[in-house]
Amino acid sequence: MNRSELISQIQKKKSFLCIGLDTDINKIPKHLLEAEDPVYEFNKSIIDATRDYAVAYKPNIAFYECMGPKGWESLRKTLHYIPKDIFTIADAKRGDIGNTSSMYAQTFFSQYDFDSVTVAPYMGEDSVTPFLEFKDKWVVLLALTSNKGALDFQMDAVGGERVFEKVLRVSQQWGDASNMMYVVGATRGELFSDVRKVVPDHFLLVPGVGAQGGSLQEVCRHGMNQDCGLLVNSSRGIIYASNGIDFADRAADEARKVQLEMAAVL
Amino acid sequence: MNRSELISQIQKKKSFLCIGLDTDINKIPKHLLEAEDPVYEFNKSIIDATRDYAVAYKPNIAFYECMGPKGWESLRKTLHYIPKDIFTIADAKRGDIGNTSSMYAQTFFSQYDFDSVTVAPYMGEDSVTPFLEFKDKWVVLLALTSNKGALDFQMDAVGGERVFEKVLRVSQQWGDASNMMYVVGATRGELFSDVRKVVPDHFLLVPGVGAQGGSLQEVCRHGMNQDCGLLVNSSRGIIYASNGIDFADRAADEARKVQLEMAAVL
Repeated sequence: MNRSELISQIQKKKSFLCIGLDTDINKIPKHLLEAEDPVYEFNKSIIDATRDYAVAYKPNIAFYECMGPKGWESLRKTLHYIPKDIFTIADAKRGDIGNTSSMYAQTFFSQYDFDSVTVAPYMGEDSVTPFLEFKDKWVVLLALTSNKGALDFQMDAVGGERVFEKVLRVSQQWGDASNMMYVVGATRGELFSDVRKVVPDHFLLVPGVGAQGGSLQEVCRHGMNQDCGLLVNSSRGIIYASNGIDFADRAADEARKVQLEMAAVL
Repeated sequence: MNRSELISQIQKKKSFLCIGLDTDINKIPKHLLEAEDPVYEFNKSIIDATRDYAVAYKPNIAFYECMGPKGWESLRKTLHYIPKDIFTIADAKRGDIGNTSSMYAQTFFSQYDFDSVTVAPYMGEDSVTPFLEFKDKWVVLLALTSNKGALDFQMDAVGGERVFEKVLRVSQQWGDASNMMYVVGATRGELFSDVRKVVPDHFLLVPGVGAQGGSLQEVCRHGMNQDCGLLVNSSRGIIYASNGIDFADRAADEARKVQLEMAAVL
């Protein structure tokens, strides 16, 4: 999916909600465990219930990988089930030397046809650019993450800027706003203005609203641009709203609540 | 495998060679393509031919992942085939928020029973510590990588040290020399003295000898400690020494050559 298609979906649905499919077999409703592929059954119901409110789905690859080959099959079926007008993010945090990053890019863009994949910046340019060689595919580069450990290295001063700002600045030589986004955690809402000084046009993928405590209003105030420029993710707050037989309806309720809040801002 | 077992293997074999199993279906000898699982057949032959010269094998997970569920099965069979007295490294470069890193740890330590996994440090402490909760399992943390992109962020000055030195220093609060190693690329041989000032005791996993141009002698001169403290990796230089029917014999020749060089240093 290209940038203008994504923007038009946001306008049409009045939503910039991304739903994280962190599907954990130990957390899904018990009645689904009788299905042949409980993870897929869960995802299918969540997608059916929330597809009108979300513009992106983000499967967290760790949750599928840890189930072995069966998990990868659940992932493939899930991806196939997601409507084609919804943006897909493989939350995989990959990144390695060039020939290896090429392999990871093939996995997520050719084998699985995701629109984008999250990539860690530590290994620099040649670990990221192989992902940018695919037309209409995106790198979502980690800049400022939502977790406590973000403070260990990302906020350090290097020259006249902080590490996350250098990542934002330098990586603009590798791609542009049509094939790169950045992860910026909602838990650091006050820093969105600093992020926007370096990347005014790029989309930001924003985890940390909901279970991790970030504020949607603050993110929008400091992070929104003329094209919206935000994909705000919620995972646990929506998909695990209930673990009873009403789980899909409750997920829809939560997704609609967030979408209405987003519509008000747009 | 614990630290003293690893050291005793190094002494016994007079080798600190790690062989990277970057097995690419497009590069293996054509006659293997008739086998039911060509990747596994190739790995089996390489392991049989080199097991006396190597103390570690390092499958590069990207190469298996990109083949889909079949690739993960080849990986499982390969891991099972590696003799139990040889250290295993899942070269996966993972790392995410705590609950997700836990899933990755489960994948590589419970599902696949690797001895260690490579982890990227960008997301800090809570992205690394979930891997350290498994007994006799190791994190191999990226510090100074062998690729060109290492110069983009890892060498930057933060306070009175460089980013890779801060990673080495700070991460010692998370684990110790019995459950953490560091990736330090052979292509930066002159920096091993600086690395050893911060981590005198830890094992270092050293890629970049061979195809990437690093020097074994220089790495040993500046990087070796009283317990050896090095696992020097070679991938392409050994496993693709020939792509004819003699590939395993030629891989053995190359591995023996490196092992003899190592024995002379030890």
